[in-house]
Amino acid sequence: MTISAVRGTFLDFVDDPWKHVGDEQAAVRFFADGLLVVDDGIIVDFGAYDEIGSRHEGVDTTVITDRIIVPGFVDGHIHLPQTRVLGAYGEQLLPWLQKSVFPEERKYADREYAQEGTRHFFDNLLASGTTTFQAFTSSAPVCTEELFEEASRRNMRAIAGITAIDQNAPDWFTISPQDYYAAATEQIERYHRKGRNLYAITPRFAFGATTELLETCQRLKQENPDLWVHTHISENPAEIRGVLDLHPDCTDYLGMYEKFGLVGPKFTGGHGVWLSDDEFRRISESGAAVTFCPCSNLFLGSGLFRLGKATDPEHRVRLTFGTDMGGGNRFSMINVLEDAYKVGMLNNCMLDGSLIPSQQNLAESERNKLSPFRGFWSITQGGAEALYIDEFVGNFDIGKEADFVVLDWTAGPPAVAWHASLLAEQGGPQTVEQAGELLFSIMMVSDERAVDETWVMGRRAYRKA
Amino acid sequence: MTISAVRGTFLDFVDDPWKHVGDEQAAVRFFADGLLVVDDGIIVDFGAYDEIGSRHEGVDTTVITDRIIVPGFVDGHIHLPQTRVLGAYGEQLLPWLQKSVFPEERKYADREYAQEGTRHFFDNLLASGTTTFQAFTSSAPVCTEELFEEASRRNMRAIAGITAIDQNAPDWFTISPQDYYAAATEQIERYHRKGRNLYAITPRFAFGATTELLETCQRLKQENPDLWVHTHISENPAEIRGVLDLHPDCTDYLGMYEKFGLVGPKFTGGHGVWLSDDEFRRISESGAAVTFCPCSNLFLGSGLFRLGKATDPEHRVRLTFGTDMGGGNRFSMINVLEDAYKVGMLNNCMLDGSLIPSQQNLAESERNKLSPFRGFWSITQGGAEALYIDEFVGNFDIGKEADFVVLDWTAGPPAVAWHASLLAEQGGPQTVEQAGELLFSIMMVSDERAVDETWVMGRRAYRKA
Repeated sequence: MTISAVRGTFLDFVDDPWKHVGDEQAAVRFFADGLLVVDDGIIVDFGAYDEIGSRHEGVDTTVITDRIIVPGFVDGHIHLPQTRVLGAYGEQLLPWLQKSVFPEERKYADREYAQEGTRHFFDNLLASGTTTFQAFTSSAPVCTEELFEEASRRNMRAIAGITAIDQNAPDWFTISPQDYYAAATEQIERYHRKGRNLYAITPRFAFGATTELLETCQRLKQENPDLWVHTHISENPAEIRGVLDLHPDCTDYLGMYEKFGLVGPKFTGGHGVWLSDDEFRRISESGAAVTFCPCSNLFLGSGLFRLGKATDPEHRVRLTFGTDMGGGNRFSMINVLEDAYKVGMLNNCMLDGSLIPSQQNLAESERNKLSPFRGFWSITQGGAEALYIDEFVGNFDIGKEADFVVLDWTAGPPAVAWHASLLAEQGGPQTVEQAGELLFSIMMVSDERAVDETWVMGRRAYRKA
Repeated sequence: MTISAVRGTFLDFVDDPWKHVGDEQAAVRFFADGLLVVDDGIIVDFGAYDEIGSRHEGVDTTVITDRIIVPGFVDGHIHLPQTRVLGAYGEQLLPWLQKSVFPEERKYADREYAQEGTRHFFDNLLASGTTTFQAFTSSAPVCTEELFEEASRRNMRAIAGITAIDQNAPDWFTISPQDYYAAATEQIERYHRKGRNLYAITPRFAFGATTELLETCQRLKQENPDLWVHTHISENPAEIRGVLDLHPDCTDYLGMYEKFGLVGPKFTGGHGVWLSDDEFRRISESGAAVTFCPCSNLFLGSGLFRLGKATDPEHRVRLTFGTDMGGGNRFSMINVLEDAYKVGMLNNCMLDGSLIPSQQNLAESERNKLSPFRGFWSITQGGAEALYIDEFVGNFDIGKEADFVVLDWTAGPPAVAWHASLLAEQGGPQTVEQAGELLFSIMMVSDERAVDETWVMGRRAYRKA
């Protein structure tokens, strides 16, 4: 008998809120008094307590009051071996990598240090409500091994792979295409689809990859079509120029990945700040995804991701949101939502026509606005769909893995409690509108302190001290 | 006998770090083991313990270890009656005021609600390390009364005044120029320079002021040249257009305040996002100040303040930094530094020439970069100088008021402690470089949780629970 249940206030998403402009609640599922029933980590029933409670009498039930329970957060883009250097004072992308990042990541060739860093990484994720991630590791195979071992111990769903770089980095940091092929092949066999682990072919970014390394990635994908592909794209203007200098036959950054047959379902490019309209259209048609990493794009001064353009229904791009920790200075996807809202609003100061009338675009401006439903959808079901893991996680549909986060809307900076008292009556949200206002308060006034508990596969994996 | 002392690690500023490009430490004063001696709230000695300790044997001394003690933070622009609506989901400036702000501020005409809000306001400030502020209140005189009464009870230095608006707001929210003149005159007599209180003529912003109200402000300044003047300037493109429509004889927003004789020392305009080069030059020459409010500029999508332009030595503008809470979504000046760094870095993606070669400006780009010393100077001594209150507060010079903040570099999100362990040895910073790295970690990886204690006039006014 492994069945158990959680009773409380639940909110998740059954559709993309961007498809319901003016009526976003059509995408939301909300039970002020709901019940989630779990058997061996898998959701076997979910609904209003009034409706389904009688079917589960006698089941061991945890009752959670004064909280909103949402699906576990999905971080589409994070760098495990940057756990200790997040927020390092620096420069824009390329010099920052050389000065702060590569020297720290190098330490993860040592198994003991890799284990220590990996423990910190997972502890920080769970304290932030993140239950699923797609991660970069380092070029040393041991770092990826430790990631999957720790993910297995914690029973968390992880997508990762050796992060290959063979140029534009110090010699001591690169891996040859031959060594990468051999180590990745061995790891794919050992880890891919074992437990909750999924393997990703991970060329770090085009500027750090020779043609031979990219051909090796192409070969791995051909030999293992089930694999994920994870990399960076169009983060920074100087980086883009560097990539196009290396590939004069390509007219844009995406074209370079297309040349090596990598773009399609299960491909994710991080950032995409400077993607052209035509690149958005091709990404959309291919089924590939882009990760929006606002904390990082602001911290490194990379630029403003065009959220309202990426969500244009004419070429809707699959989007995950990511911390990009340590290019991003925060571990929490709640902080990611804060900065994502700010990026969207900043975009809009150019789109209302008050500065340059010919740039007025009110529809795009509307899509730039990260409502709480758009935000929380993006870090749960939306992120899962973009990563092609929505059969496993993302919402509370029956059959999915029971990963969820228990949010306390009164926790956070001292200002948050009195603010929240304005938004919902005592006892918590009774309507989806009130729940939305509390979620917005969490994303803009609070941070990971709102995460009271994090549950993985139906078990409590974190509880705030 | 009211003499007491604090022994610990101290860091403050004796000059503007922007004047020392490449050698910012010349602006910093750092004692790994320092002593601050206070008599009746006033600093009477300060220095290395080795050098001055023997002069103060027998003095009641509080020893603080594993912390950095910096001057109390100065918030140059904050709205007391928005304490409960900070971070309200909204629009850009003008509709946001109508929908979220004016209805809440209206409640502060009620003394009981104003008292409750004021208590929250001061509690949040002290928990954030802010010991001095320049605040907007509401148009109801009672709100300003409560602010000064509470500031007096807490013995905190405050600049404030009735926040006058007589157009472009609901009728129930405006105050007539006659009523404003009478109430302000009475309050100036009652509060200005009583205890630590300072009075500011506060037209809310030009878009909300008739010519008659602005003439009333001019008259108040002529009658009381010692008063401060506090308002908004060039926050949002639509607002600027509105102001210029009202004043067709002015060619820019600043010109309108100049027309009414308000621009000069002790004048502060909040935001200044869209100030022209010529406005920066005239502000610099006049001795007036601008408040940079990055959290707000991002949250409301107002735009990117040109930090590197405002700090151009050819027309250096006096700058305060401000939360602009509730247009800003955070009470903490540490979060202000985080977003200020991000704004500076974002500006720089246009200035390195990689996008538009003709816009390359490497000197301005360098000034956009908010180093930890530039940041903490701006929220202490720099802010005090801009507000013309550096005779009272801002650093640990002898004769100043003993307001300070005790910072714990290991407190904050779960990620911060391991990060900080990379930056300084056990026992804390031994050098000014290490102190700078820890301050940067506090501003980018932590938040107000780093504020362990806040002291006002030599007494502990807040200690983290």
